[in-house]
Amino acid sequence: MIETIAGGVCAPKGFRANGVHCGIRKNKTKKDLALIVADKRCATACVYTTNLVKGAPILVTKRHVADGYAQAVVVNSGNANTCNADGVEIAEKMCALVEAHTGVSAEDVVVASTGVIGQRLPIAPIEAGMPALAAGLGDGSDAAAEAIMTTDTVKKEIAFRFVLDGKECRIGAIAKGVGMICPNMATLLMFITTDAAISPAMLQAALSEDVKSSLNMLSVDRDTSTNDTLCIMASGLAGNREIIEKGADFRIFCRALHCVTSAVCRMIAADGEGATKLIECTVSGAATLKDARLAAKAVVCSDLLKAAIFGADANWGRVLCALGYSGAKLDVDKIDLDFRSAAGTLAVCRGGAGLDFSEAFAKEVLSEKEIFIDVNVNLGKKRATAWGCDLTYDYVKINGDYRT
Amino acid sequence: MIETIAGGVCAPKGFRANGVHCGIRKNKTKKDLALIVADKRCATACVYTTNLVKGAPILVTKRHVADGYAQAVVVNSGNANTCNADGVEIAEKMCALVEAHTGVSAEDVVVASTGVIGQRLPIAPIEAGMPALAAGLGDGSDAAAEAIMTTDTVKKEIAFRFVLDGKECRIGAIAKGVGMICPNMATLLMFITTDAAISPAMLQAALSEDVKSSLNMLSVDRDTSTNDTLCIMASGLAGNREIIEKGADFRIFCRALHCVTSAVCRMIAADGEGATKLIECTVSGAATLKDARLAAKAVVCSDLLKAAIFGADANWGRVLCALGYSGAKLDVDKIDLDFRSAAGTLAVCRGGAGLDFSEAFAKEVLSEKEIFIDVNVNLGKKRATAWGCDLTYDYVKINGDYRT
Repeated sequence: MIETIAGGVCAPKGFRANGVHCGIRKNKTKKDLALIVADKRCATACVYTTNLVKGAPILVTKRHVADGYAQAVVVNSGNANTCNADGVEIAEKMCALVEAHTGVSAEDVVVASTGVIGQRLPIAPIEAGMPALAAGLGDGSDAAAEAIMTTDTVKKEIAFRFVLDGKECRIGAIAKGVGMICPNMATLLMFITTDAAISPAMLQAALSEDVKSSLNMLSVDRDTSTNDTLCIMASGLAGNREIIEKGADFRIFCRALHCVTSAVCRMIAADGEGATKLIECTVSGAATLKDARLAAKAVVCSDLLKAAIFGADANWGRVLCALGYSGAKLDVDKIDLDFRSAAGTLAVCRGGAGLDFSEAFAKEVLSEKEIFIDVNVNLGKKRATAWGCDLTYDYVKINGDYRT
Repeated sequence: MIETIAGGVCAPKGFRANGVHCGIRKNKTKKDLALIVADKRCATACVYTTNLVKGAPILVTKRHVADGYAQAVVVNSGNANTCNADGVEIAEKMCALVEAHTGVSAEDVVVASTGVIGQRLPIAPIEAGMPALAAGLGDGSDAAAEAIMTTDTVKKEIAFRFVLDGKECRIGAIAKGVGMICPNMATLLMFITTDAAISPAMLQAALSEDVKSSLNMLSVDRDTSTNDTLCIMASGLAGNREIIEKGADFRIFCRALHCVTSAVCRMIAADGEGATKLIECTVSGAATLKDARLAAKAVVCSDLLKAAIFGADANWGRVLCALGYSGAKLDVDKIDLDFRSAAGTLAVCRGGAGLDFSEAFAKEVLSEKEIFIDVNVNLGKKRATAWGCDLTYDYVKINGDYRT
């Protein structure tokens, strides 16, 4: 039984958070600096962007979590601290400021930045904002979630409770990102906390496996950012027997983790830049999990399909086309395809050939806010889901002049 | 010496062409059926889409050119004849109609279709239009180029002359496509004719090698169509010694071929759906040709960069980001980057770090119609060029409601 609860990253025992406006951004009503601090050192696991151009904070964070433990997360928005000569130095100063104001060793601080690339990140506003940020630590998951937003239009925060070894455990997260991402604004950041007791190695195993079916199945624009960072910290304060190997407890933990990550994927896709609709594509009947993932991901990545969904046009040929170039093993003559939403289910293709359908009903189905694309390739038993959003005029507008 | 000449596919000796409106399209002013006929059987080579969902005409064409020879090309626009139960039958009927009205054996006809997927292609209008189409064969490259257009806003037609073995040879082409393509409208089709004498095997070798640096380096929207077909026919009427192996003559022929294909790539990119600007990215200094190609292609494929170019925003971080996830080998600290156009050259990045530049001059450079992105990764001597276009409101508009 896994249930939604309030509290975000502060829902699990042993975590405090806060967010403030420190002045990296000119707009004084927008918070731009976030801090999460744990009561004790936590087993910690991270996953980072695969982009060869990596933000300086990632280099520093990798060093700090190399021993499998961390105790705090500091994040700024408004500047990615990437492609700057002094980037590493600035990221290290941010960690030192956390140590000075919270007592957590700088070596146990995870640091992240999100915003424009190639502009120096000044330390002065961070230095000025840190005392109030640290002093205000408490039940501030909300403020932290707000402080890491860039062009996000909604705050991304979630928490669940579940039972491990007879003990109630909690897992919560904050995230930002309006795409799978991009250099200058939509860098995906996600910080998860839990009070479950789990070893660093098992935490990393759970996280690395989970992203294959969560964040790696999400796309707004197929641009992989330089600063993507996903971090999970486990305080162990729930009191369960520590998870140190694969088994029943590990599987329960993984399910709870996936509740968090898949919920965040849906939030990010729905808030994709300029998006008016969430697209969720599920490919079932695949011969292998890899085939199912390749196929589902290709569908939500197709600009043509995304534009058709924006226009509520049941252009199913674009789904077949994307499946065809996805790299997944297929037999075109076996593909079944439905469009589905709160308005109903529209069957459009059976055995690779089109069905007659009502254009009026199609419009109705595709005019909803959440569009499900259900594909059965009828070759096996594997299934995967991918998330994306429609492609709209506003995506072009937001990205046509972001920097200036 | 390779020089531009007029005449398109009819410039080489031994080819006649025509295009008519036969009624597949409702708009009577838009031609929708094209025919190219050679005086004799020609050495023929083709390259097709890699999409697993393939148009029925491709299946028929593959069979007809399996022996390395063909004598005619018939193409309709307005319907892709793909994902239809009777697709192969209809494509074969099109070839039989060519035989009936021109005397060319149906087995020597290349057939192609472009337009909406999943709607049956009626044979009646093609049957009705064929007599006039065949009767009007002549210097009609222009009419044929027009008949294969879908959402193309400009006709794509070009020809060059060059010398092989002391003999003047000609090579010409017509093409259509407003992207690297998509299922329902922008399917890329290109038909090349030449009077150079060259064996089928060497013709295929030249074509297969050429596409790696021409059509495979072109993208409008990263959607690979179900119907892409590139076909070249060589009549041999120029009278040169037949090219039957690699050597000086083969290299000259390949250069002439690349003049045609790269010119068409630029035309297609500039006419990309909704495009206002051509983007040409050249990556030099790469360790391998594969690295150079991966890097250049990733840049012109980035929606974020494409939107920035639309907005004339010198957002160079997006170029670095795309290079970073391209899969090419890079040392970020060695990357140099310039934006260039008719208005001048703007240096924005040296050794992976940003340079100061005038925003006013940047706007000027990026407001031109052809934008060049020059990247030097400073790791070796290989270079590659890729072509794309900006991402605009009109792309979304055109694709939001194409089908209905």
